[in-house]
Amino acid sequence: MSNHAALASQWMAASAQRVDQAIETSFDDWSVSAQQLKDAMHYAATGGGKRIRPLLVYATAALSNKPLDDIPGIDDCAVALELFHTYSLVHDDLPSMDNDDLRRGRPTVHKVYDEATALLVGDALQSMAFGLLANSRLTEAQKVAMISSLATSGGLAGMAGGQAIDLENVGKPLTKEALENMHRLKTGALLRTAVQMGGIAIDLNPQQLKSLDQYASALGLAFQVVDDILDATADSQTLGKTAGKDAAANKPTFVSLMNLDGAREFARKLHLEAVESLAVWGDNAYLLKAIADKVLYRQS
Amino acid sequence: MSNHAALASQWMAASAQRVDQAIETSFDDWSVSAQQLKDAMHYAATGGGKRIRPLLVYATAALSNKPLDDIPGIDDCAVALELFHTYSLVHDDLPSMDNDDLRRGRPTVHKVYDEATALLVGDALQSMAFGLLANSRLTEAQKVAMISSLATSGGLAGMAGGQAIDLENVGKPLTKEALENMHRLKTGALLRTAVQMGGIAIDLNPQQLKSLDQYASALGLAFQVVDDILDATADSQTLGKTAGKDAAANKPTFVSLMNLDGAREFARKLHLEAVESLAVWGDNAYLLKAIADKVLYRQS
Repeated sequence: MSNHAALASQWMAASAQRVDQAIETSFDDWSVSAQQLKDAMHYAATGGGKRIRPLLVYATAALSNKPLDDIPGIDDCAVALELFHTYSLVHDDLPSMDNDDLRRGRPTVHKVYDEATALLVGDALQSMAFGLLANSRLTEAQKVAMISSLATSGGLAGMAGGQAIDLENVGKPLTKEALENMHRLKTGALLRTAVQMGGIAIDLNPQQLKSLDQYASALGLAFQVVDDILDATADSQTLGKTAGKDAAANKPTFVSLMNLDGAREFARKLHLEAVESLAVWGDNAYLLKAIADKVLYRQS
Repeated sequence: MSNHAALASQWMAASAQRVDQAIETSFDDWSVSAQQLKDAMHYAATGGGKRIRPLLVYATAALSNKPLDDIPGIDDCAVALELFHTYSLVHDDLPSMDNDDLRRGRPTVHKVYDEATALLVGDALQSMAFGLLANSRLTEAQKVAMISSLATSGGLAGMAGGQAIDLENVGKPLTKEALENMHRLKTGALLRTAVQMGGIAIDLNPQQLKSLDQYASALGLAFQVVDDILDATADSQTLGKTAGKDAAANKPTFVSLMNLDGAREFARKLHLEAVESLAVWGDNAYLLKAIADKVLYRQS
């Protein structure tokens, strides 16, 4: 393992711990009447996960060569994104959507509580994400830029829109272009926002943000292609969620469209595209490069 | 009818039209791939409703004596609140919550489309509300203050928390204090945010905002007491939604707790409290006063 790779590996473990701790802090000292809802939100937001979005925030902010502790509000960005992502998982797992009993190796929220609570957990996590950004130590300009990005990437023109297109196309043939578009909305948009948030937090200029967006865009699609490969090849225990569910639901995937070998080659091509777009940042981008490697080579 | 009352009545009709138009504009020229989700969001957001939250925004902004057209971003505030409120109605109507087939006199979203679409409609409307504020012509400071208020009043410590408490207490006896607390969260918080948004848009000082919060707080509770009275006394056609459902669901209400006469007296007391808190504003507050009257005397 190269020195950079070893450092990146340590850094990722430390950053995952960092965001876990920041998530705990965001729930601590929050005295509310709705204790059960708070507990259910906390259950949903904790218990692991890959924390890819927080890692992207932190790794992008690390381009500044500043310690994370010297970047005001950076943990709020990471937590906001992870809570937003968590809200989407909780709703996605509901019976009317993917009807999933298992998430991150644990029973899903509507299994532990009930459907109504899971619905409210997602709703309240979304509000909490925006609230964290609005009340962070970021500047007002940074807050507004990030909130705008999150609202776009999470809503009709992003994640929610992608999920709607996904639902509409179950059992229907999709072209590779249509499948790509769906995934760019469904998962890609939020990953791009993660990188944008990290960049905004360290005051990158619009050109720099745009160049990083190429990285994030390729990475986001690679992430989904690998997801499809894993869904088709791994078992539920390794994944921590139900494997093979896309095929069972007759959903179009990159594997169903390009076969396994084609999907693997496409993932490698996207990985290369992501890594190449980081060239201008030189060694400073080793963490972003390591995340791209992790996305390509992950087993779950 | 007094001159003020006649003016207020005209103003309310014009303002309801104004926000309807602004909602249309917010959907126009928004080109997205997820056309069906956009249509479903539009369906949910249009077709009437009392538009109390937008009216509160506009009436509070009118304290400045400026025409609404001269207050940048005021329509975005009104639309954001109405979309946020709409998201909560769509989710509230779902089978796992109130399981309602009728809303604003029309079939509910999950009846016209399906449950998954209704879930996404609510999710995306919430994002859209925050996005509208972030991209409005308000100042950055105004945007951040409003987004913070909306996130708080909509989330765990507000609307979503109130709904969770509501769900937990079906069929259980509640004290009047506990019922009040639940409603202050469930509906009161967002009405208070409406008044705060109108006040922030015209740059009121913290003391002025606090005094208006007393009005909004009393009004919000009055609104709910009247809701309970109407649920117990009106028919579904007049209400535009299913009447008698609280009693059917064995939910504690102000009527079940205080009887009809007690609830009516409580509503009048709250109305008086709201109106008295406007005294410092003199005649400038005639629209806010008219909204309080409308809340007390409404038939649906």
